[in-house]
Parts: sequence; C-alpha cells; structure tokens
Amino acid sequence: MHAYRSHTCADLTKENVGDTVRLAGWVHRIRDHGGVLFVDLRDHYGMTQVLCDSDSPVFNEVDKVRAEWCIRIDGVVKARDPELINPRLPTGEIEVYIRDLEVLGAAEELPLMVFGEQEYPEETRLRYRYLDLRREAMQRNMALRSDVVASIRRRMWGQDFREYQTPIITASSPEGARDFLVPSRLHPGKFYALPQAPQLFKQLIMVSGFDKYFQIAPCFRDEDPRADRSPTDFYQLDMEMSFVEQQDVFDTIQPVIEGVFEEFGEGAKVDKHWPQISYADAALWYGTDKPDLRNPIKMQVVSEHFRGSGFAIFAKLLEQEGTEIRAIPAPGGGSRKFCDRMNSFAQREGLPGMGYIFWRDGENGLEAAGPLAKNIGPERTEAIRQQLGLGKGDAAFFLGGKPASFERVAAKARVEVGNELGLTEQNRFAFAWIVDFPMYEADEETGEIDFSHNPFSMPQGGAEALEGDPLEVKGYQYDLACNGYELVSGAIRNHKPEIMFKAFELAGYGEDEVRKRFGGLERAFHFGAPPHGGCAAGIDRIVMLLAGTSNIREVIMFPMNQRAEDLMMQAPSDPTSDQLMELSLRVIPQE
Amino acid sequence: MHAYRSHTCADLTKENVGDTVRLAGWVHRIRDHGGVLFVDLRDHYGMTQVLCDSDSPVFNEVDKVRAEWCIRIDGVVKARDPELINPRLPTGEIEVYIRDLEVLGAAEELPLMVFGEQEYPEETRLRYRYLDLRREAMQRNMALRSDVVASIRRRMWGQDFREYQTPIITASSPEGARDFLVPSRLHPGKFYALPQAPQLFKQLIMVSGFDKYFQIAPCFRDEDPRADRSPTDFYQLDMEMSFVEQQDVFDTIQPVIEGVFEEFGEGAKVDKHWPQISYADAALWYGTDKPDLRNPIKMQVVSEHFRGSGFAIFAKLLEQEGTEIRAIPAPGGGSRKFCDRMNSFAQREGLPGMGYIFWRDGENGLEAAGPLAKNIGPERTEAIRQQLGLGKGDAAFFLGGKPASFERVAAKARVEVGNELGLTEQNRFAFAWIVDFPMYEADEETGEIDFSHNPFSMPQGGAEALEGDPLEVKGYQYDLACNGYELVSGAIRNHKPEIMFKAFELAGYGEDEVRKRFGGLERAFHFGAPPHGGCAAGIDRIVMLLAGTSNIREVIMFPMNQRAEDLMMQAPSDPTSDQLMELSLRVIPQE
Repeated sequence: MHAYRSHTCADLTKENVGDTVRLAGWVHRIRDHGGVLFVDLRDHYGMTQVLCDSDSPVFNEVDKVRAEWCIRIDGVVKARDPELINPRLPTGEIEVYIRDLEVLGAAEELPLMVFGEQEYPEETRLRYRYLDLRREAMQRNMALRSDVVASIRRRMWGQDFREYQTPIITASSPEGARDFLVPSRLHPGKFYALPQAPQLFKQLIMVSGFDKYFQIAPCFRDEDPRADRSPTDFYQLDMEMSFVEQQDVFDTIQPVIEGVFEEFGEGAKVDKHWPQISYADAALWYGTDKPDLRNPIKMQVVSEHFRGSGFAIFAKLLEQEGTEIRAIPAPGGGSRKFCDRMNSFAQREGLPGMGYIFWRDGENGLEAAGPLAKNIGPERTEAIRQQLGLGKGDAAFFLGGKPASFERVAAKARVEVGNELGLTEQNRFAFAWIVDFPMYEADEETGEIDFSHNPFSMPQGGAEALEGDPLEVKGYQYDLACNGYELVSGAIRNHKPEIMFKAFELAGYGEDEVRKRFGGLERAFHFGAPPHGGCAAGIDRIVMLLAGTSNIREVIMFPMNQRAEDLMMQAPSDPTSDQLMELSLRVIPQE
Repeated sequence: MHAYRSHTCADLTKENVGDTVRLAGWVHRIRDHGGVLFVDLRDHYGMTQVLCDSDSPVFNEVDKVRAEWCIRIDGVVKARDPELINPRLPTGEIEVYIRDLEVLGAAEELPLMVFGEQEYPEETRLRYRYLDLRREAMQRNMALRSDVVASIRRRMWGQDFREYQTPIITASSPEGARDFLVPSRLHPGKFYALPQAPQLFKQLIMVSGFDKYFQIAPCFRDEDPRADRSPTDFYQLDMEMSFVEQQDVFDTIQPVIEGVFEEFGEGAKVDKHWPQISYADAALWYGTDKPDLRNPIKMQVVSEHFRGSGFAIFAKLLEQEGTEIRAIPAPGGGSRKFCDRMNSFAQREGLPGMGYIFWRDGENGLEAAGPLAKNIGPERTEAIRQQLGLGKGDAAFFLGGKPASFERVAAKARVEVGNELGLTEQNRFAFAWIVDFPMYEADEETGEIDFSHNPFSMPQGGAEALEGDPLEVKGYQYDLACNGYELVSGAIRNHKPEIMFKAFELAGYGEDEVRKRFGGLERAFHFGAPPHGGCAAGIDRIVMLLAGTSNIREVIMFPMNQRAEDLMMQAPSDPTSDQLMELSLRVIPQE
C-alpha cells in the first residue's frame, strides 16, 4: 500500500464497504460521543468520517489528536446506519473504522480556526495564511482563480494566439504609475524597472511579425494600497494583434470573457449583447466610463426645461457657460420619504442637495409633487415627465452645474436609486464597450493640453485630425465595463512615427523627449511597423467578480497587506551592508 | 472587405484562382525581372508571391517598395505556369497579380537583413531584436517555446494539477544565489527581493492543503552571465505534491517531460526507460551528476590491477588514502593515433596525461600495446581487458589520484571518446534520474560540514540518520539528467521542524539562525505540515534542447546581453533624483 494514502478524502462510497483503506489529511474536527471518537478527516478534495472506539488498537493515540493535525490512518470502510447518512457529503454514506494512526505533522494551538465560519482580522489571516487558506472559501477561491486562468488560456489558444513571455527585469514603462526599481549590481548606480504592463514589449512583438500575442502577465505598480488593488504585483490577460481594427479586437476578446463568465458564473445571466457606448454618452447617461448596466436608469439632460424658469438656482446656473441640468429618472421612487432619503444621500456626498419631483395620484388625476415642481410650474413639470417617460409612482432627481462638478455624485446617486428601488438586476453580468475616448484633456487650472489616456493610441482620423482642436480628437481607445468595474482596457496603437510625434507635440512633448522616453519603440516603428491593437483584462478583477468579493486579497494566494508588507515572510526587510555595498547604495537615514 | 487582409500569406491555393484578395505583410524580397516585379510577401504564417507588371495601376508605387516595408495589397489570384510552381510553399501554385498597394509602415535602411542566412554580431541582433525576430529560425524558436509551455500546462492539468501564482515582489529566498533586491518606498531603507525560485511558497501551498501545485514560474538570480544562463529572469516548471514519496514525483513528471520531447522532438528517439542512478555511481561511471547516456561508455575502478604494479606512478599514487585508478573503456579506439590524441586532450585539460592500453592483432594473436601495458605486464593487462570486456581494436584510458582531482577531466574525456568514436547516439534524448545525493559535504580545507545541495530536503532515514556521520547521510533529493544537461531538480522536503533543526545544526546553523532565515516556513511546519515533495524543470533548457541550440538567447524573446543590459530598451538606466529620494537611497559614487 502507498505510504500515505490509497484514496483521497472524497473518494470512498458504499462501493468500498469492507475495503481496508489508507487516508491522509487534516483533522477538521474531532468529537467525543461518550467514548466514541469521530474524526472529520479533510484533504483538498473532501472529507471522510473516521470512527474510533475503545476497541480500536489506537484509541489512546487518536484521543490525543487535535484540530489541524496532519495524520495518516488505516481502517476499514463501513456503511453508515441509514439515519446517519449525510447526503451533503460525497462520502456521506460511509465511515472508516480506524485501525492504525500515524501523526505526520502535529499542530500547536491554532491562532485561527479552519473549521467554522469565525471571522478574523486581516492581519491574523495574512500572518497565518497557510491556515487561512485551508478554509473552505479560500480553497474554493484559489481553485476558481486557477481554473479561470486555465480557461482563458484554452480560449486564447483556441483562437490561434500564442503566449510569449516578456522581460520582467527591464526598463521603465510609460503607464503613468510609479515603477518599482531594481538596482543593478553590474552597473553601479543604474536601475532596472519592473514592468507596469508589457505594453512596449507586446507592441515590439507585433513589429517582430508575430501577429497574435497573449500573456497572463505579471504587472508591477508601486501604488498606494486600496481594497481592490494589490499593492505590488497583479496579473493581466494581455493581448495584441496585427492588421486589425477596433472591431476585430472586440470580436476576439468578447467570446473569451463571455465564455469565462458563462463557465464560472454559476448560472448568473451573462449578457450576449455588448453595446458600444461613446465615452461622452457614458458620462451623460451614467456619469462614469464604467457604468453598471444591470441598472436600467439612464440620465438625461433637461436644461431647457429650467432655463428662465421659476427655479432660480437652476435658472441662474444655466446662465454660466458649460453648465447643464441633468435628471436621474427613478421609476417607482415616487414617495416623499424616498426622495428625501436620496436628497440626504447627495448632501452626504458633498452636494448642497438634489432637487426632485415625484408623481402621485392627486385630486385631478396625476399630480407632480415636490418643491421643484411648484417653482417651475405645471407646464414645464409635465414636459419633463414626458421627456423622461415617467408616470404615477415615479420620481426624478436633478443635478445642475458644470458636469465635472456633479457627475461623480450623479453616478453614485444613479447606483443608489437603482439599488434602493430594486431596479438593478441581480445575478447578471452586464457588459458594455466604452469607445471614442478623447485623446486629450485640458488642465482645469492652466488650460494646458495633455493626454487624457494612453498616449500610444491611434487618433481617429489620423494625422489630419491632429490639425484641428486637440480637445475634439478621439482615440481608437476602449474600455470594457462590467457591473460597474473596468474589466478591460485597450486601443488600436499609433504605429506611424510621424503621427506619433505630432500627437506628442500637441501634448507638449518634443521629439527629443519622445525619443528619450520611448526610444526603443519609436526606433522600431521606423522598420516596417504593422498596424496593431489589443487590450488587457484584469485577472484579479475577473476572479473577484466571479467569486463575489470586493477584496482583492480574497483571490490572491499570498497577498501583501495594505501597507505592502508580507507579515508571514517578513518582507520588506533590512538589507545586509554587504548587499548594499554590492549595489553601491546607501540608505538615507530618516529624520 | 477587411481593412487589411482577406487571407493570410499562407492561405491561398489553386482553389482561390480568380478571387480578388487582400493581403498584408512584409516585403521579404523584391526582384525585378526586366520590368516585371516579384514581391515575396511574408507574414507570420507564410509567404505569397505578388506579381506586378507595367500594366498594373500601381507599378510606380510598387517599384519604390523595399525589403521589410509593411504593406497591404489588393490583387487577383492567378495560377502559376506549371514550370513555375514552387512545391515547397503551400502557396506555391499561385501568385497574386497586384491591383492596389498601401504602405502601412515603411522601413529605413536595414541594420540586419531578415531575408537570407547572414550572421550578425549578437549586439546587433539584440539592439534590433524586432528585425532579428522576423527571421525564420527565430519565428520558429519562439513558436516552439510557446507551444512547449502550452503542452506542459495541458499535461499538468491532465494530471489534476492546478497552477497557482506565487508572489514576485517578496522576501529573500534561500537558493544560494544572489537575490535581486527591490527598494521599498513605503518602508524606507527596507528592501523586497525577487524570488530565486518559488521554493518557500510552494511548500507553504502544501501546508495550506492544496495537494498539487504547479507554476510556469519566473525566477530571478543576480548571477554573472553565461551562455546557457539568462543573466536576469528565467522560467521553471515548478511543481509540488503532498503525501508523496520520491517515486510518486518521478511517476508524475516523467510522462510530462517524455510527452513534450515526443511531441516536439521531431522524430528523435525519446528514451522510455529512465534509469535511477545513485549520485555515487554517476560520479564513478560518468564523472558527473548530469551524464549523457547517449554515450554508452561507463568508467570502472581498476585500482587493484595497478596496486604494486610496475607502473610506478599509479602504484605510488595508490599508497595515498582516498586515491584510485579509473578506466575509460574506448571500444573501437584501438589505434596509437587515437590514443595519442586523447592523451593530448587530457594534457590540454590540465592533467599530466592519460595512460592508455590498446589491443591489436599481434604475432601471437591479440596484443596489448602502449607504454602502460609494458609497465604492468601481460597478466595484469589481460585482467584489465577482461574486466572492461574489451578486445581487438579497442582501447582503455586511465586516470589516477583522488577522484575530485581527475573526475572533471574524466567526464570530459568520456564525452570526447564517445563523440570521436561515433559511439554517442545522435537524434536521441536519453534521461536518467540521479538519486541519493549526499546531504552534506566537508570543506576541503577547513573540514567544516555544510549542506551539499538543498537544505530543505528530507534526509534518508529521518532523524536517526542524523545521529551518525553526516557525510554518510543521503537526502531524498534527485536530478534528472538529459543528454548531459541537468533538466530537473527536486526533493522530498523535510517537513518536520525537529528534523529540520537537527539537520541545520549539523551544518552549523543554530535554531535562531534557522528561524531568522526561514522563519516563515519554519513557523508553518508547526501547524500540521503534510509530507511533500516536488521538483522544478528548466523551461529555457528544455526549449534549447528541442531547438538544438546551446545559446539561451536563441529561445528568449527579449533577452539581456551578457552584460545584463537591454540595448534596445536601454536598461538598466540612471534613476531620476526624485526616484532616489522617494526610495531614500543615495548612489555611492564609483572611484
């Protein structure tokens, strides 16, 4: 017989009754029923009940065993009495009567219980991650992550993509976040950087003629920690294709993402139709470029109804340039109580408040209520109702000013209204491509023009488009939103050096600066660069959505804590003076 | 029609004759046959001949096109004249008569030709890697690498392994090489390290109850460069299993490696029987722990035949303790010319020479020739011949002294003899497990005991074995040798803290030191650690063997040069003073 096991803890059924078996695993729980010991023996695959009574030759040894000891047992499979069958366990029809026991690894007193649902502070969980990971939910999350990544790979291979590995110790990458640096020993005073993304390398792979590339790529950004962000390394499905337009990238990646959500969504509805919404429309309708389309509410501009109206605040606002009034329709929200609650919500978010109208049964039929309705009068109120398509029992909320001043709160209010009124569908994954991102934005204070997103995207209209107003130029740049998260981001790249220089010039970067910062890629574009484009999808975020968690550390095996420390392995730590000397570095003492 | 292509450059056949098609790719070669232009248009998939004559509306534009320009063409598929059919090309039966041309990316004068087999200095190839990678051999190597890694993943999944990602920005790992360090911004003066291997984490994954782990894992060692070693990052197939013994690991990994070599070995013989050879036997028979078993020569100890013999050098040597005489049999090497050549070889390798005997037809039948035979006389000579199983036309070479002093040269001589005599089989992959590595070795000068390999391996015989002579203790530690390379290395781990402390104590490490250096893992072993073991296989080396190259840079997309620089991306580079300030670091000026 094998030294440790003849079966896993999920294998044994009634078929095995009478067999002598060997099992190994952890003591999940041990119960003493008046001199009869029941051990729930757990391994990665399942659980088997092990029985020990005073007739067993190893009763005294079993009696010493405690939770989370790793043991090996020999025993005989017995059928359980019909009333003791546990239909929730694959092994629930049997138990194993123990004959022999070997303690493979004893356990000290546990700082964290594996059995049960007790909650622990995150610091405890991370310090004793090896215990935390034994818990059912973590075993499931890690298996899910592994299976999702495997499925993504299979789907990419199925579309004739090959995975190519790009360097990890390399040069600084221009993603806009802070690089992690790696001092060079062989070149004192010089540093490598860890890639924020393989952006430059995947473009070079296209220039090298590989046509289709993908990689489940580790990415590194030295950012300040956040709940939904790993403070050090994270993984992307990174892909790039040559000789493609934007729609080709969509047609390639949609079946991959859709397939993964179908496969692991546990029956949740996965939208097949992925609307393409311009960045401008997304801002208008949803107040964000990552809308949650499970929520059917679309905001609308209703400025005209307030211009010169009796509601002086809005009427005055509209006299300033660049202002507008936007309505959030709230079907079913037609009660003063609800409207007041939403008004308070807006105040908590830092706005003076949110005006509203709601419609109810009045003496003469439909009646519009709320202070706003009185101020602007019945005609304008009715025109608003008709524009928004609302009726009895519905409400509408109004925000005014420059969109930048209220859009963030508007977006949140839309989510709040959708949730409060039960309009946001549960158990569904709703996707939308956000397209036509502006290439440039003006600094609010200085008015200076800079790239609003990725400087390597191809401007729509090419070189000619760059002759006009930069703020009008849109890029072939796109994001995929899912349930309010940005899941994918990508672009058709600017592969023409002359357009690239022109695009950078508009943002104030001279040719020398471009060559200095992106010289490797820029040089390559002078040797027959193909048109190309692609995208990157956040692996951690996909798994978070599928696991139903909003904490990224629930889907990473060994994450850092929020101070970017690994408490289990003691990282970061003090270097030795020899190490510093080899790297020609000195640490500046802290004040 | 699609903006760039209706077909790839490998798609078109006689079936398409008459079709109007659109192709995109690179100008591989352009020939002018008296006013008729032939463009070999190349993409990742293949090559198509494009024809242009003076009747073509774009003749003048095509005439300007140069090698490696990226172009899009429209044209009509025509059958080639029977005598012009190229049977080596899938598209060899057709050509495309051009109607329209678009230059997608022009190319400057090329520093490196893609067409043809011209060789270039490695610095040129790496600086213009995107051109180098367009060459046929590099396209093939990169595709091979990608396909090998995909195949490994499929095979590991097929054995119910899951891939789990371990941290890249983490703590120092105890692999014995130098760590790359990453300064922490949030914790001034402290550093992370990049993992030399995920050794500690994969063991923690076992303690966490995951049972089967693998990862195609990036590993980082700050080592001085070598031809067969990447100076920065490289990849391992890293795997680990719980509740296993050594043979279980072998049974798991053999089908994976064997399968990959079968799949990509292009018909080379792949050995099915992988002998298990003890470290001691490997040293004796082959002079190395990574023998090339395609070479059938096995060395033998022949000390007894020389003890007290007339060959004074060996007879004297044998009076010292720890010395021996070893023979390299050379079937078919029985000529003075060959023997002298091998003797010179040994001299070039730093030995005084290599004695030999060879057997030929003499007046009285079989005759032993060479100075050694005369010195020791016919009886001893014949005993040697019988022990080695040699005969007419064969030879034997002899090396004497302490094995450590000659084994390196003996190993090389064995390889040389095998190659020179054509004994080493070509077109074959021969594997052997090297087992029973010693746990400890004594420093030659000080006599101090230290670990000879991995300190985390389980000693054979457990705690008891550690009570005797440390130099007698063997570990459950193993390597896989293939054609003279170490392909895999692994061990059954020491998962028992008390045995671990004892093992470290023998090597002079106190408990405090162990806790300080490996505290994370050591702590974990106190909470129910399962027995576990695994191995790691070098991806780069597997691909090198399959690609038939001995330069690791031929199988890496964007490798560093031998000075650990990326000439294309300019890494490493000078940090900005802001970056250094954020990291609280100062560079010590070089003298």
